[in-house]
Amino acid sequence: MIVTPQRLHVDTPLPLRSGAVLPAFELVYETYGQLNAARDNAVLICHALNASHHVAGHHADAQGQPIPKSEGWWHNMVGPGKPVDTERFFVICANNIGSCFGSTGPTHINPATGQPWGADFPVVTVEDWVNAQAQLLDALGIERLAAVMGGSLGGMQALSWTLQYPERVRHAVVVASAPNLTAENIAFNEVARRAIVTDPDFHGGHYLRHGTKPRRGLRIARMIGHITYLSDDVMNEKFGRRLRPLAEALRHGDVATAERLAYRYTTQDVEFEIESYLRYQGDKFSEYFDANTYLLITRALDYFDPAREYDGDLSAALRRARADFLVISFSTDWRFSPARSREIVKALLDNQRAVSYAEIDASHGHDAFLLDDPRYHAAVRAYFEHRVGAHLSLPGGTA
Amino acid sequence: MIVTPQRLHVDTPLPLRSGAVLPAFELVYETYGQLNAARDNAVLICHALNASHHVAGHHADAQGQPIPKSEGWWHNMVGPGKPVDTERFFVICANNIGSCFGSTGPTHINPATGQPWGADFPVVTVEDWVNAQAQLLDALGIERLAAVMGGSLGGMQALSWTLQYPERVRHAVVVASAPNLTAENIAFNEVARRAIVTDPDFHGGHYLRHGTKPRRGLRIARMIGHITYLSDDVMNEKFGRRLRPLAEALRHGDVATAERLAYRYTTQDVEFEIESYLRYQGDKFSEYFDANTYLLITRALDYFDPAREYDGDLSAALRRARADFLVISFSTDWRFSPARSREIVKALLDNQRAVSYAEIDASHGHDAFLLDDPRYHAAVRAYFEHRVGAHLSLPGGTA
Repeated sequence: MIVTPQRLHVDTPLPLRSGAVLPAFELVYETYGQLNAARDNAVLICHALNASHHVAGHHADAQGQPIPKSEGWWHNMVGPGKPVDTERFFVICANNIGSCFGSTGPTHINPATGQPWGADFPVVTVEDWVNAQAQLLDALGIERLAAVMGGSLGGMQALSWTLQYPERVRHAVVVASAPNLTAENIAFNEVARRAIVTDPDFHGGHYLRHGTKPRRGLRIARMIGHITYLSDDVMNEKFGRRLRPLAEALRHGDVATAERLAYRYTTQDVEFEIESYLRYQGDKFSEYFDANTYLLITRALDYFDPAREYDGDLSAALRRARADFLVISFSTDWRFSPARSREIVKALLDNQRAVSYAEIDASHGHDAFLLDDPRYHAAVRAYFEHRVGAHLSLPGGTA
Repeated sequence: MIVTPQRLHVDTPLPLRSGAVLPAFELVYETYGQLNAARDNAVLICHALNASHHVAGHHADAQGQPIPKSEGWWHNMVGPGKPVDTERFFVICANNIGSCFGSTGPTHINPATGQPWGADFPVVTVEDWVNAQAQLLDALGIERLAAVMGGSLGGMQALSWTLQYPERVRHAVVVASAPNLTAENIAFNEVARRAIVTDPDFHGGHYLRHGTKPRRGLRIARMIGHITYLSDDVMNEKFGRRLRPLAEALRHGDVATAERLAYRYTTQDVEFEIESYLRYQGDKFSEYFDANTYLLITRALDYFDPAREYDGDLSAALRRARADFLVISFSTDWRFSPARSREIVKALLDNQRAVSYAEIDASHGHDAFLLDDPRYHAAVRAYFEHRVGAHLSLPGGTA
């Protein structure tokens, strides 16, 4: 499946939750499958922290050939014959405002100054993203979604869709998410932000004007992130206390060397495999991700809290939802634990919503929502096939 | 109880696990209570990451008056009438080598260069610390300890004492500890170290020569540490999602202002209480702690692994222990979880050691080992009164 990003330019000013107004904006998005004649088979996917509009399929090179390793971030979930089957559903995903993958964000030019927005880019919230996504649906002529779906921060957007546009959503699939962040979650976000903001190359958020970027801070932020995405269990399985040189010797079948290897006793060099893994992830991330985007997106996570206007009463907050729900959590996810998903389920049941809930026994922590777990995918497949699909005016797809 | 730090100078070279040799060293230490005539009522306390030899009592000012807030870090545990009762036991604690509270460490002068050691200070291990502590006991004329006791990294030293000097320890009290660090623990240490090492003010570890210190890195390291010391539960209790300005207005009884307060929508300023708390802790720590010490002590944690020489077989590793044990863990401690303490207990039982084990239901995470929990303190008190005390040649103390 070859896919080409598209672009929507919106000239209508977008009022933001913060009180600021974005005078105009662009959304980069991709679609997969065909919108049916009744325009009722659209599924909107919402992306999480460091992902983009590129959910599924491959991008093509100049010769039209698929670029190797250019699969979308949820390609195991979305595509022809996949749990979210693009032979039946018309799937859409837009890069969120404030991100660094094409939609209007802090690396773009602020029309008021002619300089990159940098730290002056307005704070954006989950609610703002949903409003922008609604404008994309308007442009595509889609009045009502068959489903909105997302994991983690994407799940917060899916949930918010059912509150901001209750009549426009038939089904919401909320995976590995939460009704708000706990203090511990905010704390991890804050440490990551401090690492970025206190990097001397941050320059108050205007590093682009200085021809640099706060790579050190981004590396630390990403390392913290990675620890919290994984479970203790899977880290022990994948890395344990294995030493880095030992692992390398064994990879080359050099058991004799491996056996001689002992601690090297170093405070600054890599000793354990896990250290090497984290440094590699940090380095990679610091090259492609924008620091101001990191601040904006972690703040969107922190701020999301639909119950806040209802004195913390989540059931009251979810009263206006009209969608049916599939809620999924993973047993070892300590960042967005099953208990948080159960809070959502309870609040929905308090409002007599139809809710399916699956708590998947998986060892991979928060990361599990991106992985190809058979029970997880079977639950999503069944829900789309029998529940979301049941509402389509043309069962079986666009034929 | 007024206490004065003492100093032991050792001219015998100390061979270290790494193969390096420390040509000479000084230990700063404190003692509490009186050594009895049989010299068999000594209890050695081992300190954890950022603590010192100052366990209990107050330091005095020039007039001999107790300095306010100068209580030792375990003053609720050690002292007259406390669970470790200094009217009965002679308690000793030494600042570990490599630390920054007086004992020989990276801020001291390297005799070979006439410059501060800085990053050239040799890597020290739990085993090295125990060897240095043994020299202190020799100097104090103590052949055998009534007990060795520690929490967290201090618990690792207590455990190591029973393996390195099995005949010199009657009882070991191992609190909130583990037989080694998990990959996740090493990962958190590594992120903290990277934050320090990549701070431009680190200067390869020779920041003292540059008249500076890597405060930014130390702040981040401490923030990460604080998150992992606390439980999710206690963070939600203490901070939850409370906003900082809101909390301040309420402190001044200004409910009208508090009610008007909403999100301020900022990526760089403090918004939530938890952020303010972490920044404060980070700032404080970066002023008094040494960065090279942080690297050394986290590495000592990473390297500790008595089972390593036994192909991971902890029971085999603990075979030479001769002490009786009290092992204590805390239900919400996810840094050194109860499961890790149970591994120690199981391995000791495999070797027919006498072990008492208490798993304390406490909400405070790893921090609980420093707090005044009645069930925890009762368990320690009973153990010292009835088990450790039973071995004293002069029951009832030095009378």
